[in-house]
Amino acid sequence: MSRRKQIYEGKAKILYEGPEPGTLVQYFKDDATAFNAQKKATLDGKGVLNNRISEFIMLRLMEIGIPTHFIRRLNMREQLIKKVEIVPLEVICRNVAAGTMSVRLGIEEGEKLPRSIVEFCLKRDDLGDPLVAEEHVYAFGWATQGEMDEIIAMTLRINDYLQGMFAGIGIRLVDFKIEFGRLAHPDGLGDHMIILADEISPDSCRLWDMETNKKLDKDRFRRDLGEVTEAYTEVATRLGILKPNPSTANISVISSND
Amino acid sequence: MSRRKQIYEGKAKILYEGPEPGTLVQYFKDDATAFNAQKKATLDGKGVLNNRISEFIMLRLMEIGIPTHFIRRLNMREQLIKKVEIVPLEVICRNVAAGTMSVRLGIEEGEKLPRSIVEFCLKRDDLGDPLVAEEHVYAFGWATQGEMDEIIAMTLRINDYLQGMFAGIGIRLVDFKIEFGRLAHPDGLGDHMIILADEISPDSCRLWDMETNKKLDKDRFRRDLGEVTEAYTEVATRLGILKPNPSTANISVISSND
Repeated sequence: MSRRKQIYEGKAKILYEGPEPGTLVQYFKDDATAFNAQKKATLDGKGVLNNRISEFIMLRLMEIGIPTHFIRRLNMREQLIKKVEIVPLEVICRNVAAGTMSVRLGIEEGEKLPRSIVEFCLKRDDLGDPLVAEEHVYAFGWATQGEMDEIIAMTLRINDYLQGMFAGIGIRLVDFKIEFGRLAHPDGLGDHMIILADEISPDSCRLWDMETNKKLDKDRFRRDLGEVTEAYTEVATRLGILKPNPSTANISVISSND
Repeated sequence: MSRRKQIYEGKAKILYEGPEPGTLVQYFKDDATAFNAQKKATLDGKGVLNNRISEFIMLRLMEIGIPTHFIRRLNMREQLIKKVEIVPLEVICRNVAAGTMSVRLGIEEGEKLPRSIVEFCLKRDDLGDPLVAEEHVYAFGWATQGEMDEIIAMTLRINDYLQGMFAGIGIRLVDFKIEFGRLAHPDGLGDHMIILADEISPDSCRLWDMETNKKLDKDRFRRDLGEVTEAYTEVATRLGILKPNPSTANISVISSND
């Protein structure tokens, strides 16, 4: 299919060698997985939607000064990104109890948390991405204290901005998962800088309609609620990425912008 | 059996109202439980041994300035303690990977950790005492940052002292679990002070013989290795609590000191 060298294949994305040194091409698949890949499916058009939604959010975050790996979208399913060394942590920011936090700490799903909480899970599929404390991060050297300070500060800024952005379109940002990478400083000094990597999309956020609490995210897949891509399309439409007309459910609307 | 008012019954201990205000009587049962009480047994004499070992260790820690709830041993199975408000966290300090940490983070049991690691689990039997980060502790108000600073500093001092004490008798302190309580300051000011509570015994530590790696702790029960009270007796003997002669396995030796 492609003459490009594949660097990495994840559950929902593939990374290829990019056209210039220090770049990669991030390809968004239609594959969906949950519960550490025990549940799998293909959702037609999901990759196209996430490519667009993640592009939109990364560009917005760059406007407020959050450094990201995003360079530009290449086509319906691909974006050009900066090559980074991924910090091996899933950074989860929660505003409302849901999912694993509800189960682990016995807090009813939907309960507003006393404040936003930043959690870290070790990126180890073979261990089910276990929750870790900062204590573990430092003891095992997964990131430095300086890096974690940057990661936490950026995560809280991203949370503030995205809560506002989604509230503006009637959506509650319940929680989201992000990843960060290390990039050589542009000044060529030895130090590395921390930048936002991976994606931000309904695959990696919990998004609830503020009026109805309808889930507009991957929980529709995890919990067999149906109409998964329809929900993702709804998010893209409210964000203004897709035009709000009867054809919005048609993925071809997206491709017409390419 | 007793006219005293029972305050609380845990898996291995019972707390009764004490003879003076602000005191409790801590009774050590022979009951052993593991895996969140899914596995249960009665081990003849375990309570007697733990009462003596915990007394010994608490007195030693008080000598180096660690405040504890221990007042004095009353008899074979009971000790008088200060009544405190328990901080709802199990504080775990690890020097060598073992148990849940090995499983969760995929580190072989017995591997020396890069440094001592302090972990916190929420005391909630119904949730299986889940691991939490300091982030959760502060967000949900289980303890203040000042309290946690005191808890961590005391835990690391206790770890230093106990590692030395056990090394002196040929035992490696792999990890241990402690609990802390809040006590009104003796000066009567509004603030509370944090003191060590609960117990320190082979029920709450992992203790390996330095030469043979033989387990001298509750893992003998958890993993059906047998000779559980014999191992606890070995610890008490090496600590000098019991006399090293053929009768050391006889619990009556302990009661002869009462």
